[in-house]
Amino acid sequence: MDAEAFRVQAHQVVDWIADYLASVGDRAVFPDIEPGWLRSRLPAHPPAEPESMDAVLTDFRELVVPAITHWNHPSFHAYFANSASGPGILGEMLAAALNANAMVWRASPAGTELEEVAVDWLREIVGLPPVFAGVINDTASTSTLVALAAAREAGALGDRPGRIYASVEAHSSVQKAGMVLGLGRDGVQAIPTDAEWRMQPQALADHVRADREAGVLPLAVVATLGTTSTTSVDPVAEIAEIAAAEQMWLHVDAAYAGPAAVLPELARHFVGWERADSIVVNPHKWLFTPMDCSVLFFRDPDRIRAAFSLTPEYLKTPEEGQGTNLMDYGVALGRRFRALKLWMVIRAFGVSGIEARIREHCRLARLFASWVADAPGWEVSAPVPFASVLFRWTGRGEDAASIDAANHAVLEGLNRSGTAFLSHTVLEGRTVLKLSVGNLRTTEADLARTWTALRDHAARP
Amino acid sequence: MDAEAFRVQAHQVVDWIADYLASVGDRAVFPDIEPGWLRSRLPAHPPAEPESMDAVLTDFRELVVPAITHWNHPSFHAYFANSASGPGILGEMLAAALNANAMVWRASPAGTELEEVAVDWLREIVGLPPVFAGVINDTASTSTLVALAAAREAGALGDRPGRIYASVEAHSSVQKAGMVLGLGRDGVQAIPTDAEWRMQPQALADHVRADREAGVLPLAVVATLGTTSTTSVDPVAEIAEIAAAEQMWLHVDAAYAGPAAVLPELARHFVGWERADSIVVNPHKWLFTPMDCSVLFFRDPDRIRAAFSLTPEYLKTPEEGQGTNLMDYGVALGRRFRALKLWMVIRAFGVSGIEARIREHCRLARLFASWVADAPGWEVSAPVPFASVLFRWTGRGEDAASIDAANHAVLEGLNRSGTAFLSHTVLEGRTVLKLSVGNLRTTEADLARTWTALRDHAARP
Repeated sequence: MDAEAFRVQAHQVVDWIADYLASVGDRAVFPDIEPGWLRSRLPAHPPAEPESMDAVLTDFRELVVPAITHWNHPSFHAYFANSASGPGILGEMLAAALNANAMVWRASPAGTELEEVAVDWLREIVGLPPVFAGVINDTASTSTLVALAAAREAGALGDRPGRIYASVEAHSSVQKAGMVLGLGRDGVQAIPTDAEWRMQPQALADHVRADREAGVLPLAVVATLGTTSTTSVDPVAEIAEIAAAEQMWLHVDAAYAGPAAVLPELARHFVGWERADSIVVNPHKWLFTPMDCSVLFFRDPDRIRAAFSLTPEYLKTPEEGQGTNLMDYGVALGRRFRALKLWMVIRAFGVSGIEARIREHCRLARLFASWVADAPGWEVSAPVPFASVLFRWTGRGEDAASIDAANHAVLEGLNRSGTAFLSHTVLEGRTVLKLSVGNLRTTEADLARTWTALRDHAARP
Repeated sequence: MDAEAFRVQAHQVVDWIADYLASVGDRAVFPDIEPGWLRSRLPAHPPAEPESMDAVLTDFRELVVPAITHWNHPSFHAYFANSASGPGILGEMLAAALNANAMVWRASPAGTELEEVAVDWLREIVGLPPVFAGVINDTASTSTLVALAAAREAGALGDRPGRIYASVEAHSSVQKAGMVLGLGRDGVQAIPTDAEWRMQPQALADHVRADREAGVLPLAVVATLGTTSTTSVDPVAEIAEIAAAEQMWLHVDAAYAGPAAVLPELARHFVGWERADSIVVNPHKWLFTPMDCSVLFFRDPDRIRAAFSLTPEYLKTPEEGQGTNLMDYGVALGRRFRALKLWMVIRAFGVSGIEARIREHCRLARLFASWVADAPGWEVSAPVPFASVLFRWTGRGEDAASIDAANHAVLEGLNRSGTAFLSHTVLEGRTVLKLSVGNLRTTEADLARTWTALRDHAARP
């Protein structure tokens, strides 16, 4: 495909994307298909000869898109709802064309330095002090792995068993990191939470003391600001005290809620996070940036490099000691130009625009929660510090198992209907529905339609 | 930015990209700038108010692009040269707009199943048997980490020290994986190579035996088909014998050379790789796919899942046991829709088109090597099994250190000139230049111009 053929096809693709963005709200959020639907419709073997891009794009429209769960739909509310904004998509288009790989400075001066600039801008937006530098990884799972690898390296573990602490509500990536790091499944100790799913600092202190007495080295504690199940907020200031006293690495998982630190009225949730050794904030979650873009902030770059820097001869360059070599800060050597989209998103929205959108998402979530709270037979199941609502239908007085089953039925009915797409979790053994607001296109009217649909599904026998 | 504003801007971006692709060969490959050039030209603080996309794109053209090393340039020959092809860029555009996240099947049925299809097509293209399944990761570093984490899990290490073996020429990601996995820097044993930089199987067998006697558990051996320094090919059939006898996991790093297995005339390099437990092949290296896209093939999905599967309640879905949940096969939970671009590339090129391009790249590399071999004062420093040439200027009879310095000067002079961009390595203590052919636009005329420039730089006093 030469440049002119690309031009023709790409203009058509842009029109498809613009039409898609304009009308995505008219589609079913979740395709009502069964596993295997798409695979069974595609050839088992690769084509021997080239196919026209028209044929490929026809199959894209007729086979791939009908099997898509539309994350960019205004009624996508599962997991953490997010947005691929226009500026972010433009950034991805340009990054793909440049195909820059910022493993060392000279391999991509712009890729390296724009990453430093965009990360520093994000640091300022969320109100962290300039002592924090950072890099962009693919996902929070990777960012957390990198942070905890650095924590282990800093801990000078030797032959002792090491342990990482996180609340029972912490993200599964913490436990996965423990497995990858070779700490074993016992390497991550779950700390109980209080009535609002926040880590209990005293329980943390007790576990750490008992572990020290047993010869286990406390390596790190992960405080979560916006947990995945309930968006609860660990008391990071108190946890920071314990981490300092115990010389543990403090990693803050603000992958979801981090961008909300831009709002003065939510600053109370973040008091103390500036004492962390590392913090993860995902622009691909709640900062309108397409997948994938996870920023890992860290206080001491040397400690990250200590865990990851290895420079073989074929990657040594004349710029040693001058330009940053991003490969030294993580697992991946190759690094796509993720900074470009983040830089474009921040510029296109401005700090005021980011504030306005996040504030509106929080307002919409509180509004939805108020509808639920006022409706007979429904309850809000957890506080709403950010823009996610945990709630459930309490049914018609049946037993707990029936109510759980009814909530699953409501969820499945709604999701299969295509009207909206939600997820669920379990709190204290009970099934709870989750509605996360994070898409730029979500309006009050969209939410009202979803709420009506939820009540309709609940009313079915 | 609403859909219509996006449409306007995106059409302009497409025209910029098409112009860029048509004329990238006229640009300096490497920008002759010093570290800090871009950063010093960008505001230290994020904009308080939204900026117009016109302003953002102006800065992109006037500040970002002038600081880009053009990986998509026909005279980019450093590291492993690659291509963001037109179909691949279109795939990235669509993936960004859909913003699909295939962590579990229902989160993206198309993202999940198209990944299965594209990976299976690639498996067939490179001639691996159907017993291999696979997933797409960001980079080979991650794929190798995942494979070696599975190897450790399968090894039932317990409290014994474990060890991984790879040749002294293996990629740094193997050692990095050993560090991350907590095996320590001693956890990866470098095995000597022969005169053509291929792992010596007898040396591997000796190390494994000695380690067993010392109570160290041999976990895995990494065989590299196309090493990063010289593109040497480890004798994987012999290594597979040893791995089988010693019950070690065999991981094959074919990140670079894997796509060349499509060529019958190169099949001899891959004999035995089908006995591996895991194989990494990077379409973003030599299969015309934009960064990032690394395929990890594995023989036994259960063994990968054993190392990575953790399903918290909020990710349980009604499809358990039916649709694949890709999050169970690696570090990252979030997974961007990388399969789309790979599927589009394979369809647009067809197997015959892939063969033709890779064959041409190999021909061009051999042609360049023949020019070097025939030129007085120059030497080809390693065999050319694929499309990368290791060579050096042997100078005017000076001592070794002067010749090394002269080669560095030639490299730096050429790179700073912008004519072409090469990298270097060190073989047996001597500086060697590397020219890798992997861009779809590279012609014989481009190579001839680079060769002339190299000789001009070498002729300078």
